[in-house]
Amino acid sequence: MDKRVFGYPLMKIGIIGGGQLGKMLSQKAKQMGFYVISLDPSAACPAASVSDELIVSDFYSPEKLKELVEKSDITTYEIEHINTSVLKELYDKGYNILPSPYCLEIIQDKLKQKQVLQSAGLPVPRFERVESFDISFFENFGFPLVQKATKGGYDGRGVVVIKSKDDINKVLKTESYIEEFVDVEKELAVIVARNKKGDVVSYPVVEMVFDEIANILDMLIVPARVEKDIEDEAKKIAIKAVEALQGVGVFGVELFLTKDRKILINEIAPRPHNSGHYTIEACITSQFEQHLRAICDLPLGSTKLLSPAVMINLLGEDGYKGTPVIEGLINALSIEGVSFHFYGKKVTAPFRKMGHITILDDNLERAIEKAKKVKEVLKIKSEV
Amino acid sequence: MDKRVFGYPLMKIGIIGGGQLGKMLSQKAKQMGFYVISLDPSAACPAASVSDELIVSDFYSPEKLKELVEKSDITTYEIEHINTSVLKELYDKGYNILPSPYCLEIIQDKLKQKQVLQSAGLPVPRFERVESFDISFFENFGFPLVQKATKGGYDGRGVVVIKSKDDINKVLKTESYIEEFVDVEKELAVIVARNKKGDVVSYPVVEMVFDEIANILDMLIVPARVEKDIEDEAKKIAIKAVEALQGVGVFGVELFLTKDRKILINEIAPRPHNSGHYTIEACITSQFEQHLRAICDLPLGSTKLLSPAVMINLLGEDGYKGTPVIEGLINALSIEGVSFHFYGKKVTAPFRKMGHITILDDNLERAIEKAKKVKEVLKIKSEV
Repeated sequence: MDKRVFGYPLMKIGIIGGGQLGKMLSQKAKQMGFYVISLDPSAACPAASVSDELIVSDFYSPEKLKELVEKSDITTYEIEHINTSVLKELYDKGYNILPSPYCLEIIQDKLKQKQVLQSAGLPVPRFERVESFDISFFENFGFPLVQKATKGGYDGRGVVVIKSKDDINKVLKTESYIEEFVDVEKELAVIVARNKKGDVVSYPVVEMVFDEIANILDMLIVPARVEKDIEDEAKKIAIKAVEALQGVGVFGVELFLTKDRKILINEIAPRPHNSGHYTIEACITSQFEQHLRAICDLPLGSTKLLSPAVMINLLGEDGYKGTPVIEGLINALSIEGVSFHFYGKKVTAPFRKMGHITILDDNLERAIEKAKKVKEVLKIKSEV
Repeated sequence: MDKRVFGYPLMKIGIIGGGQLGKMLSQKAKQMGFYVISLDPSAACPAASVSDELIVSDFYSPEKLKELVEKSDITTYEIEHINTSVLKELYDKGYNILPSPYCLEIIQDKLKQKQVLQSAGLPVPRFERVESFDISFFENFGFPLVQKATKGGYDGRGVVVIKSKDDINKVLKTESYIEEFVDVEKELAVIVARNKKGDVVSYPVVEMVFDEIANILDMLIVPARVEKDIEDEAKKIAIKAVEALQGVGVFGVELFLTKDRKILINEIAPRPHNSGHYTIEACITSQFEQHLRAICDLPLGSTKLLSPAVMINLLGEDGYKGTPVIEGLINALSIEGVSFHFYGKKVTAPFRKMGHITILDDNLERAIEKAKKVKEVLKIKSEV
């Protein structure tokens, strides 16, 4: 019998970032009786109206980060691009910041991340730090290759494909590394949760289908349409990766399944992840509740999948910018099994994540058809 | 193709009452991109920190109710004990108030409610208006009987059982009616949703198990352990009852299954209902989302049950009053399939609803065992 008792609120949770992930995390925290303080540059951010308090600040202000951490029993974050040096200082003084800023620092630097994973014996694409921008350096590594900036990349930014010598003008003149161009059969993702005690659980393997033109996630399918042994292997690798990083919290682990049936780790996010939104409706414990359980050192919840699911992001239509207008909502909601999430961003812009849709259906193929139908009818445009 | 378009927010929803039902409704509304204005006497009510705005007022102030209705595209409520005459006036002027205050007025008066249901040919216990407090009046109706105040009853208050002439001193000297004492096999409940167009759906039948000492809901089990024909009949009656009331929104319909296998309507709540909390985790569309879909004239969502479920209310322990302290949370959360809801009331009191737990398990009997275990370990006490 665990004798810990809780008052109300259970604890004060500080969240750096008040975007959609912060909003969904805050909503779950409020359901469970936590007090939530969000920090975001915008007073009108999605989390603002669903948190107890909002500190308006950018993610690098030492004073404001300190204020948040001091006010909170546990501080966490929904984004990676934040000031780790301030957070490390506070962490070293004994404040609870989870995942730890040391773990975050490794993940922020994609090269360091790869090195840690490789040292732990985990499968990653062959890679090398860029020591020279001379073409011979790239040629020696072998074409085709992918060059990635070590820091600051997001949604495909900071990444270029170099197919041959002729692409030399594409090379990023920045702190970066190169990795082999992987012949990908499917992209997979696994949400993993780990608490301080070291208890660790994984969610079902999801299949990420990309829009090749915009290079953004088009559709997320769960369970992934892969063989059982691939599924088991993917979960095992994802769990080991989070253990290698000594991560505490929820992590999104993105994987490549190669054409020759190997699984390689692509990258890791130290927070609830777009590929885990389906868990809100489709799993007993959502990734957001799981993150709270993990960072508060509560027992981890069941990750059981209650139904096959497909998730699609609702992106701002290309060519529209301004106050959002939703077209086709009635038609989308008339499709059985559709759940609608709209984040409350005041302005839409091309490809901006404005919301998402989850579709539950016993039959996965039918869920995929429904998702395609939703994509046809539902459009986020703007006032003209 | 429906051509209606929505901006952000989708609509402004006014909610009279900021208790746990208002909180859960507001959280779902915020997920979907609505703007929420709550009205409650307490600035620290559960809905306060999860709504966009809070109007602090009692439920009878004409000025404040008018302010809420005028600010909102659609106004709804989480409680029945509110000022219907003001709301009727505003409704007649064309403001959207749903369920309509006329429907609410019928439901507020339990005798009128019974009369409307009976006129629609629906099965209700035999009843009669109390015309005299003379014992002969009661004797003529026949013992045992139940006397119920027509207005203001709640959680068993305003209800007395009169077994014989000897109980004459128990008689409530108030506007009331008497009804036959029903020999109950089980109490059942069905959540029904109906939109303006008249589309109507029901949720699975739930079985309400009562604590006979405190006369409060002890455990809610879904699907109810009844035969298929009873289940179908219960849903049919519940749907017809909401149609008879021309209800728009979500309604909780409480039913008696008698020892001789008849279904009788006990009473109806014109709002999301305690017996529908399980839908948050166990159904594709929660009762709160469904209420929003219904009052906003959106297509109704799927009421499919994803897993058997048991719900228990977390009531303040007898003998404790003050700032709540939660004992046994770790042990409760370590049980697989447990979801924890804590409403955020600042003060606990004996039998006060402080939160609830939902347990999902493939096996209903195992879910019931888990619920019993949670009741043993999890206690809401207060600071000493």
